[in-house]
Amino acid sequence: MAGVTEGSVALLGTGYIGGSLVLALRAAGLDRCVVGFDVDPTALAAALRLGVIDRAASDAPSAVEDAALVVLAMPVGAIVPAAALIAPRLTPHALLLDVGSVKGPLVSGVEDVLPWPERYVGSHPIAGLEQSGPAAARADLFRGRAVVVTPTERTAPDALEEVTALWSRVGAEVVRMAPEAHDRLLARTSHLPHVVAFALAHAMGEVESLGAIASRIAGTSARDGTRVAASNPAVWRDIFLANRLALLPAIDELAAFVEELRRLVTMGDGEAIGRRLEEARARRARLLGGSAA
Amino acid sequence: MAGVTEGSVALLGTGYIGGSLVLALRAAGLDRCVVGFDVDPTALAAALRLGVIDRAASDAPSAVEDAALVVLAMPVGAIVPAAALIAPRLTPHALLLDVGSVKGPLVSGVEDVLPWPERYVGSHPIAGLEQSGPAAARADLFRGRAVVVTPTERTAPDALEEVTALWSRVGAEVVRMAPEAHDRLLARTSHLPHVVAFALAHAMGEVESLGAIASRIAGTSARDGTRVAASNPAVWRDIFLANRLALLPAIDELAAFVEELRRLVTMGDGEAIGRRLEEARARRARLLGGSAA
Repeated sequence: MAGVTEGSVALLGTGYIGGSLVLALRAAGLDRCVVGFDVDPTALAAALRLGVIDRAASDAPSAVEDAALVVLAMPVGAIVPAAALIAPRLTPHALLLDVGSVKGPLVSGVEDVLPWPERYVGSHPIAGLEQSGPAAARADLFRGRAVVVTPTERTAPDALEEVTALWSRVGAEVVRMAPEAHDRLLARTSHLPHVVAFALAHAMGEVESLGAIASRIAGTSARDGTRVAASNPAVWRDIFLANRLALLPAIDELAAFVEELRRLVTMGDGEAIGRRLEEARARRARLLGGSAA
Repeated sequence: MAGVTEGSVALLGTGYIGGSLVLALRAAGLDRCVVGFDVDPTALAAALRLGVIDRAASDAPSAVEDAALVVLAMPVGAIVPAAALIAPRLTPHALLLDVGSVKGPLVSGVEDVLPWPERYVGSHPIAGLEQSGPAAARADLFRGRAVVVTPTERTAPDALEEVTALWSRVGAEVVRMAPEAHDRLLARTSHLPHVVAFALAHAMGEVESLGAIASRIAGTSARDGTRVAASNPAVWRDIFLANRLALLPAIDELAAFVEELRRLVTMGDGEAIGRRLEEARARRARLLGGSAA
């Protein structure tokens, strides 16, 4: 791997995304000792047992002592504190990346606590978070997926090159974007869809009393619309909070549409309803393609 | 087919659902002349050309003249007017069913205009409306799907038996429910998910300017969450309006959750956010099963 010629790999957070990245790097020929740490001892033990990591460290700082590559793969809310914790023990040329779903506040937060912020490159693989834990990790998770990298003016060009090469090596398509642009885009295309899925799951609740019949009647619209509400609440709580600046205006736009549709349905204004739905459909088609698939 | 021993089949509305029902009945051995009518001459011509119908009628009343079975398969907003139009020309023992996605106001509306309301049974196959037109019709559309039938106190037991047998014959699982119970259930499990999908498609709009990048970054949450926003706006406008009594409280419950989540995110109340998300996730799991699939 370009730039990582010696030293170990430190995996901090041995869950689904981090575990998959290590497995993918191994499958792509990485032949280094992977030292892992996780605040959840069960996940850490599982990662060791499954061969995701070669050695379990007793804490985060000792995991990074000999690391040439440090992967910050913990939940969004834990990334900056972890970076602060390991900073004093990092080797001078260690390359760092995180895999958090929010970038703006995290990237500047991590840069602020590192002695060599130029060797850190924020990354976000668009790979879904419905799974969790090292047992779900897969070497092919990033194949054909987009990974956003978010260098800043503090990032060294060679560090960006190395991280780009790393993601390409596991089959991902790398997209470069400013941290704030990433957050605005993801607020609309990922975080808001999760808000909506949880809200829909909540609002379907009244039919619970119908039991098995409700499940048989619920169409694919209910299943698809709430699928990501099966995701880990703690993960999404952290993402919503970390990206609140970009998420709140997106929520407002959604709420305004729902409110207007409610008003038009109450008034029976079929013409206006049809127009609003048609506009929304056209917008989706322009963004994601025209089919329902 | 039990009870339909002679006479033709009249298909009013030769689109996806109606066309599929005729194809499914033919595949199950129905050997009768199918006379079709559609207000859209293109759909009518296509249904004839594709062999969905055997003969195209010049208007709805003449389509039903010799019919032992009448299928009302037009959009929700057109069902009661069509029933009123054909009522004077129905043969005395004709069996009627509709396939509308809303039942309460339609069932009572149809019953009110028919000379023999006891031979009409409201039906709703849970089969998705993202497709449209006779070219999309498929003989296996109803296999393994639930079909809700909504008899009332005016429905004759033998008519209910015949319609139940008809749906069973094309492979559907028949669920019996009062029209109003159907509407409350579908408001939550189908109509509200469509409101949300259109709203999400609308709110994703700001990222349009990013073009191809946005499409590459948009995760499965965005695709799944807006999939049904590719549906026909006119169809859903009619459904929202026809089922407004049950839909409005469902919209209110959704909007209240979104508003509360917005407030908690603004305040940074992570504990309360986590609790609300966990409750929504548990509700979904109880209703649809625990997995994200």
